[in-house]
Amino acid sequence: MDWVSVDKLGEHVGQTVEIRGWLYNLRESGKLLFPIFRDGTGLVQGVVSKKEVSPEVFEATRCLTQESSVIVRGSVRKEDRAPGGVELGVEDVRPLQVVSEKDPYPISPKEHGIEFLLDRRHLWLRSSRQHAILKIRHDVIRAVRDYFDSHGFVLVDTPIFTPAACEGTTTLFEVEYFDQKAYLTQSGQLYNEATAAAFGKTYCFGPTFRAEKSKTRRHLTEFWMVEPEMSFAHLEDVMNLAEDFICFIVERVLNDRRAELTVLERSTAPLEKVRKPFPRLHYDAAVKLLGEKGIDFQWGGDFGAPDETAISESFDRPVMVHHYPSQVKAFYMEPDPERPELACCVDVLASEGYGEIIGGGERMSSYEGLVRRIQEHHLPPEAFTWYLDLRKYGSVPHGGFGMGIERCVTWICGIEHLRESIPFPRTINRNYP
Amino acid sequence: MDWVSVDKLGEHVGQTVEIRGWLYNLRESGKLLFPIFRDGTGLVQGVVSKKEVSPEVFEATRCLTQESSVIVRGSVRKEDRAPGGVELGVEDVRPLQVVSEKDPYPISPKEHGIEFLLDRRHLWLRSSRQHAILKIRHDVIRAVRDYFDSHGFVLVDTPIFTPAACEGTTTLFEVEYFDQKAYLTQSGQLYNEATAAAFGKTYCFGPTFRAEKSKTRRHLTEFWMVEPEMSFAHLEDVMNLAEDFICFIVERVLNDRRAELTVLERSTAPLEKVRKPFPRLHYDAAVKLLGEKGIDFQWGGDFGAPDETAISESFDRPVMVHHYPSQVKAFYMEPDPERPELACCVDVLASEGYGEIIGGGERMSSYEGLVRRIQEHHLPPEAFTWYLDLRKYGSVPHGGFGMGIERCVTWICGIEHLRESIPFPRTINRNYP
Repeated sequence: MDWVSVDKLGEHVGQTVEIRGWLYNLRESGKLLFPIFRDGTGLVQGVVSKKEVSPEVFEATRCLTQESSVIVRGSVRKEDRAPGGVELGVEDVRPLQVVSEKDPYPISPKEHGIEFLLDRRHLWLRSSRQHAILKIRHDVIRAVRDYFDSHGFVLVDTPIFTPAACEGTTTLFEVEYFDQKAYLTQSGQLYNEATAAAFGKTYCFGPTFRAEKSKTRRHLTEFWMVEPEMSFAHLEDVMNLAEDFICFIVERVLNDRRAELTVLERSTAPLEKVRKPFPRLHYDAAVKLLGEKGIDFQWGGDFGAPDETAISESFDRPVMVHHYPSQVKAFYMEPDPERPELACCVDVLASEGYGEIIGGGERMSSYEGLVRRIQEHHLPPEAFTWYLDLRKYGSVPHGGFGMGIERCVTWICGIEHLRESIPFPRTINRNYP
Repeated sequence: MDWVSVDKLGEHVGQTVEIRGWLYNLRESGKLLFPIFRDGTGLVQGVVSKKEVSPEVFEATRCLTQESSVIVRGSVRKEDRAPGGVELGVEDVRPLQVVSEKDPYPISPKEHGIEFLLDRRHLWLRSSRQHAILKIRHDVIRAVRDYFDSHGFVLVDTPIFTPAACEGTTTLFEVEYFDQKAYLTQSGQLYNEATAAAFGKTYCFGPTFRAEKSKTRRHLTEFWMVEPEMSFAHLEDVMNLAEDFICFIVERVLNDRRAELTVLERSTAPLEKVRKPFPRLHYDAAVKLLGEKGIDFQWGGDFGAPDETAISESFDRPVMVHHYPSQVKAFYMEPDPERPELACCVDVLASEGYGEIIGGGERMSSYEGLVRRIQEHHLPPEAFTWYLDLRKYGSVPHGGFGMGIERCVTWICGIEHLRESIPFPRTINRNYP
C-alpha cells in the first residue's frame, strides 16, 4: 500500500490509507484514544476505539509518547470541525521508535525560555508556529524568484569570498584563504553592477554576512539578501521596482498562506493595505516629520530604529524615504545633481513600525567621481580596480536595491524578532546547533 | 518614448523604437555602417546609411569603440538572415560614453589566455559564450527550484556558519567568529536531516565551501549545491528521485535554451538520451567493469576522476553507482543490512565522462550505530549532540542527496572546466575580481 501525506488526506475520504509521521499529541477518553499525528505537511486527528482495534494496537497507541515515529493505517472520514476537514479512523498503528519516558521529547506545550528553544532549534522546528513562519519564508523566496524571473532579470550569483569590504570594514568576517585573507560578502552589489552591464537586468540572491556586535532583535550575523540591479536606471526606476516588488510578495503570501497567517494570529488588515502607490518622503520631509512628532533629530544624521519606527507609523503602508545625505550612505551612491550633498538613494520602511526592509539607489556612474569617493573613504584602491573598470568601458546610469529576506518575513509574519524567520539563526552569541 | 529590449524587437516590426546598450562590433562598407549593439538580452545589427542620417550621426557612429554605451533610435525591419529575425534602420545614435582609444576595451574577438580573461571576469561576462553558459545556469537553477517546489519539498535554508565539519576536516575554511572559531559549511545535509524530520521533505540550496588544494578542472573552493532530504525514504527512493530530477532539468534546458546550446556548439544528441531509467550499477559490478576495461583498480577504494570517466563512458546516459564500501564514504551512511561493510549510498555519474554530479544515500537511523561511527571517525561528540537527538526523538529511515550546480551546468553546457559555470569562480589561487 502506498502512503498518503496528511495534506492530501482530503482526496481520500472513504478510503483506507497509510500515513507516516510522528505523534504530536495524545488525549485519552475512556475507551477512546485521540492521537494527533504530524508528518510535516499537516496535522490529523486519529480516533482509536477499543472495540474496533485489537488490544495490542490500542495499547501500542496508548503508550506512544510525544514525537514517537509511527506508521498508521486508517480510514479517512470527513469531519468538518477538524482543521484539514478530515479525521482518521485508526485501524493499525506500527511504532518505529517510541521516545523513552526517561528521556522524553524536551519541548512540551508549556512555555519554554528562548535560549532553551534556540539550543534545541533542530527540534523546535517541528512546532506549528515555526512551521507557519518557515512556510511563509519559503513562499516569500519563491515569490522573489518568480518576480525577477518573470520581469527579465537574469540570476547571476555573486561571490561569497571577496577581496574587499563593500559596506564598511567594521563588520567584516575574515577567513584564512590559503596563504591570503578573504572576507565574507556583505552585499553582492558591486558585482551586480558588473553583471547588470553584461546582462542588462540581473539579481543575486544568497547569504550575506555582517559581524554585528549589536544584540538587537533586528540583527543576525548571517542573513539572506536578494539584490536586483538594472542598467539604464535612475532612482525613480529603483523606487518603482521596489514598490511593485513588495506588493507582489505580499499579495502572494495573502493568496497562498492564509492558514499560516492564522496560526501566527497575524492580522491581515495591514497587509491588505500594501498597495501601490507607496508614499515617497524626501529626507528633508522625514526630518520635519520627526520634529513634528517631538523627536529630537538633527538634519544630516542617519535614522536609528526608533526614528524609522516613528516615520513608518505615520503611514498605513510601506514608505519610501529618499535622498539621504551622502555622508551617511555608502561610497558608491550617485549624488543628486541639484544638491550634491544628497545621495540618489532610497530606504523602504515597512509598515507597522517594522523599519527598513529595502535599501538601494542609483550608483555613481562617473569614473572621476568614484575615484574621489574611494580616496575619501580610505578604501584600498587596488581592490576596486575592477569596479572602476565598469566606469571606463561603457558606463551607464544604473541602480538597484537589496532586500533582507528575514526582515521581510518578520514583517509579513508580524513577529517580534528576526531569529524566528531563519531556520538556524546566527548571532554574536550563537553558532549552534 | 519608451525603450525596447533587444529580445523584444520582433514585436515592433515597422515601428521606430529606442534601444539602450553597448556597441558589440562595427563594420564599415563605403557609405554604410553596420554596428552591432548588445543590451544584455541579445544582439541586433543596425544599418546606418550616409544618405539617410545627418553627418553628425554618421560620424558619431563611426567613432564608436567596442563597449561604448549608446542610446539608439531606429526602425525595426524584418530580416530573416539576422539571428533575432530583425535589424535596426538607425535614425539616431546618442553615445553616453565612448571608450577611449588610448585605453580600449581589453577583450577583443582575438584569443586571450585564460588567466587574462579570469582577471577581467567582470568584463568577460559580456561575451556571447559566457552569456550562453550563465543563462543556462539560470535555467538550471530555476528548474531545480520548480522541481522541488512542485513535489512537496519545503525550502529550508541551512546555515553557512557551523560549529563542526561534515565532510572531513582537511578542507574546512575557518572563520574568526567573535571570540570563537566557526567553519563554513561543506554541506547542509546534517541540518537537512533535522528539517526533514520537521517538514517531511525539504531541500536547501546555497553556496558551500571546501578548501580544495587540488587545481583540477573539477574543483572550486566556493560552489552552489542543492540538497533534498526525505523522511521515510530508503536508498531506492533516493535513486528514483535523483533520476527523475536530472531528467526534469535536462528537459527544461532542451526546451528553453536551444539558442544558448547552439552558441556553445553543444551537441544535443547526448542530452536527448537523458531519460529514465538510468542504469544502476552495484559497486562490485563497477569494479568488475573497470577490470574489463584494463584499468587497475582494487575493490574497496573510491573511484578517482579517470575511473568515473571510464565507467560513465560505458553508458549513453547518467549511471547510478550504488553500495560503495562504507570506509570510503562519510560517517553518517546507513549500512547495507545484508553486507554491513557496504553503505546504502549512490553516486550519479553524468554521461560523456563528466563524472559525479550527485552523491547521496540513506542516512544512519540508529542512535547506537551513529554514536559508534562518530567515535570511529574521531569527530568531536559535543558538536554532534543535536544531530544525535534526531535518532532519539522519533528516528525514521531517511535519505537524500546533494547536486553540485556547477558540475551539472558544466555537463549540460558540454564545456571543459567548472570555472566558466559560475559568475565569479574561486579557486586556491583566485579570489579576484
